[in-house]
Amino acid sequence: MKISGRNFIQGKVLDIKKGATTAHVHVEIAGGVVLTASITNEAVEDLKLKKGMSVYALIKASDVMIAVD
Amino acid sequence: MKISGRNFIQGKVLDIKKGATTAHVHVEIAGGVVLTASITNEAVEDLKLKKGMSVYALIKASDVMIAVD
Amino acid sequence: MKISGRNFIQGKVLDIKKGATTAHVHVEIAGGVVLTASITNEAVEDLKLKKGMSVYALIKASDVMIAVD
Amino acid sequence: MKISGRNFIQGKVLDIKKGATTAHVHVEIAGGVVLTASITNEAVEDLKLKKGMSVYALIKASDVMIAVD
Amino acid sequence: MKISGRNFIQGKVLDIKKGATTAHVHVEIAGGVVLTASITNEAVEDLKLKKGMSVYALIKASDVMIAVD
Amino acid sequence: MKISGRNFIQGKVLDIKKGATTAHVHVEIAGGVVLTASITNEAVEDLKLKKGMSVYALIKASDVMIAVD
Repeated sequence: MKISGRNFIQGKVLDIKKGATTAHVHVEIAGGVVLTASITNEAVEDLKLKKGMSVYALIKASDVMIAVD
Repeated sequence: MKISGRNFIQGKVLDIKKGATTAHVHVEIAGGVVLTASITNEAVEDLKLKKGMSVYALIKASDVMIAVD
Repeated sequence: MKISGRNFIQGKVLDIKKGATTAHVHVEIAGGVVLTASITNEAVEDLKLKKGMSVYALIKASDVMIAVD
Repeated sequence: MKISGRNFIQGKVLDIKKGATTAHVHVEIAGGVVLTASITNEAVEDLKLKKGMSVYALIKASDVMIAVD
Repeated sequence: MKISGRNFIQGKVLDIKKGATTAHVHVEIAGGVVLTASITNEAVEDLKLKKGMSVYALIKASDVMIAVD
Repeated sequence: MKISGRNFIQGKVLDIKKGATTAHVHVEIAGGVVLTASITNEAVEDLKLKKGMSVYALIKASDVMIAVD
């Protein structure tokens, strides 16, 4: 499958914190960078996400901002 | 400055393609990962973005999805 | 592949309008509903999108609002 | 009222799951397609959303991705 | 009509810059604050947006970040 | 620091409601307008957000819609 979202980054699940409806997933990508994803609990269950699992982070280009010092 | 957006990733501008109103910026982060940001031309000018410049990519956690094979 | 984004809807490309950097794609889904996606030209080329092609629309649940009359 | 968001789709509330601050609402649209919306509990109360209610799903075009097999 | 998006702010169109597919609209709200909206040209035409027109800016709560100095 | 997100609006925290993983923050900006931000609990703690604190709301232009009566 190919997706129009331009940012598709391989990583590994570090931890998952499920709330009442929304879960936060930390994913370590290359260079030790850690991404945080806020997704539904439903998705965590549907994808059977577990600590250590190999995953991809997917981010639409229009959701990426740039900051400079 | 501190920002609530949980993903704040150091990188370097690889190239900038300006369209009529919207620009696409490629940013190389750690491990050779390249992010694509779709931002306004206004922002490119306001931040004086140039190839090779050190920048940060900023992404809100609620805009990050997870995919599994 | 499975994606955390909860809205993954089968459809067919009706037309594609490419701008300078950003393209608009109309996708007809079940019941004659037509969705509009604003994606990068890069993605249109990478996915080789063409009129009549079978595709999926993918939308994160946190990007869906509800309105009532 | 008219809204710039290009995707405005009639449907019916299937169910609502309220969490501590965030609710998930399933909306059935034409052709039996079910959308998931993640909205605030505040909005659920303000719109008096109930199972079976006629609603619209509203999605900005820049939040729609395309995927191909 | 009522919308789940929690930020619905009255304002006036200051100017509209149409690109090839995407337009940028500046809207002045209370206190002289100016918002920038990036929307489709299609929406500009459909809503017949003109300089000086009274409009609302609509922003989903999950798209608002907080920054501190 | 400068950020590509075109909407950067000074305000004051009115209240914070933390859920299990997601918090809702109300911010009063100029003219008595109140914005709602849905952010992670992590961010509330990291920024040490408190009632009465001076903050900025940050919103990407591509997340702003326009509505007309």
